[in-house]
Amino acid sequence: MRVLYHFPLSPFSRKIRIILKEKELDFELIPENYWERRQEFLALSPSGEVPVLVENDELVLHDSIAIAEFLEESYREKPMLPPNTKDRAETRAIANWFDNKFYNEVTRYIFNEKILKFYKGSGEPNSEAIRAGKANIHSHLDYISYLLRKRKWLAGDEFSLADITACAHLSVLDYLGDVPWQHSDSAKDWYSVVKSRPSFRPLLSDRLMGFKPVKHYADLDF
Amino acid sequence: MRVLYHFPLSPFSRKIRIILKEKELDFELIPENYWERRQEFLALSPSGEVPVLVENDELVLHDSIAIAEFLEESYREKPMLPPNTKDRAETRAIANWFDNKFYNEVTRYIFNEKILKFYKGSGEPNSEAIRAGKANIHSHLDYISYLLRKRKWLAGDEFSLADITACAHLSVLDYLGDVPWQHSDSAKDWYSVVKSRPSFRPLLSDRLMGFKPVKHYADLDF
Repeated sequence: MRVLYHFPLSPFSRKIRIILKEKELDFELIPENYWERRQEFLALSPSGEVPVLVENDELVLHDSIAIAEFLEESYREKPMLPPNTKDRAETRAIANWFDNKFYNEVTRYIFNEKILKFYKGSGEPNSEAIRAGKANIHSHLDYISYLLRKRKWLAGDEFSLADITACAHLSVLDYLGDVPWQHSDSAKDWYSVVKSRPSFRPLLSDRLMGFKPVKHYADLDF
Repeated sequence: MRVLYHFPLSPFSRKIRIILKEKELDFELIPENYWERRQEFLALSPSGEVPVLVENDELVLHDSIAIAEFLEESYREKPMLPPNTKDRAETRAIANWFDNKFYNEVTRYIFNEKILKFYKGSGEPNSEAIRAGKANIHSHLDYISYLLRKRKWLAGDEFSLADITACAHLSVLDYLGDVPWQHSDSAKDWYSVVKSRPSFRPLLSDRLMGFKPVKHYADLDF
């Protein structure tokens, strides 16, 4: 059986969980407290990060972008990238926007301060860093609104890797109550539709020890 | 003519320049001081970052990972990714290691403090940040040595996107004299061979106003 080592509130793990579900591939989830840097886990993941996909005994994959491309190349039936090269480039650029820019300007600040520090026992959250992350999120919600003015989904008329990556990051912040949805109606509507997809539903049942999600987290009509 | 908007010492620009040369594609280079956030440039690059590839009048691409995948899909003759999905995943994971982990732990600290601050006129470099970047580079050189113990190139027996991405980042730091090559003979030997590739040579002629490269920068037998 395929195994995914993950952390429930890692956006990169969530991205791969959604892709696996969209492609209707069976997998078993194994939670990994990756910051503990277990030797056995480091042997699977040289960077020490989640997710790690154990596709079979001889194929262990790390790095969520590489895993997403692998799944796309290996299981073509339910594609997460559009067919032509131009649209694929646009889809990947938007996906990478969230994995890099959004992550470094928003997710990382809030996740590291609130969650990692709690689990590592490395002190109180730095409220200045959290404030910075919360301030930065507005321009990203504007970017989502801008994309949705021209399109049904973030990268075009089909649900794609761009939507998956964006909602993976937003869902982590939403769990913590840190998405100011009132800032953008179109982003909120888009997220609400994503939330109701069967591939996304399992994420709504995640519960993290020490952190209760906000009330609307699992609410499909939030 | 294909146009690449770039900044000479941007590792992401350098990666695409090397790929274009490896694939023997003609292009014109236009330098862009992207931190100035020119309106005309922002219309091409929503993130405001380099590189941007204007493939033709109707096709403008941003995000270096998306551009690299586009070039790989569009020009298959000189592949930068190996043929089978497993090896492709490994190659992408190593390339992303340098674009994400190495960039965030090393390049960004040193580049932002030394170069961006100088060009933006935003104060003196923070020597603590530079020290952090310089301290972090050692484990990455160890990672390169580790990979080269098993292989001729970083991701296998062929030169690939992994080598291109790693040397793009290292070359920026090498220009500034910030790579402690004495730390790893195998990394140094590998870099020396990469440097002598025709695709890499143009980078050795780059000169940045205000920054003279270290003496050995363009020396093939450094």
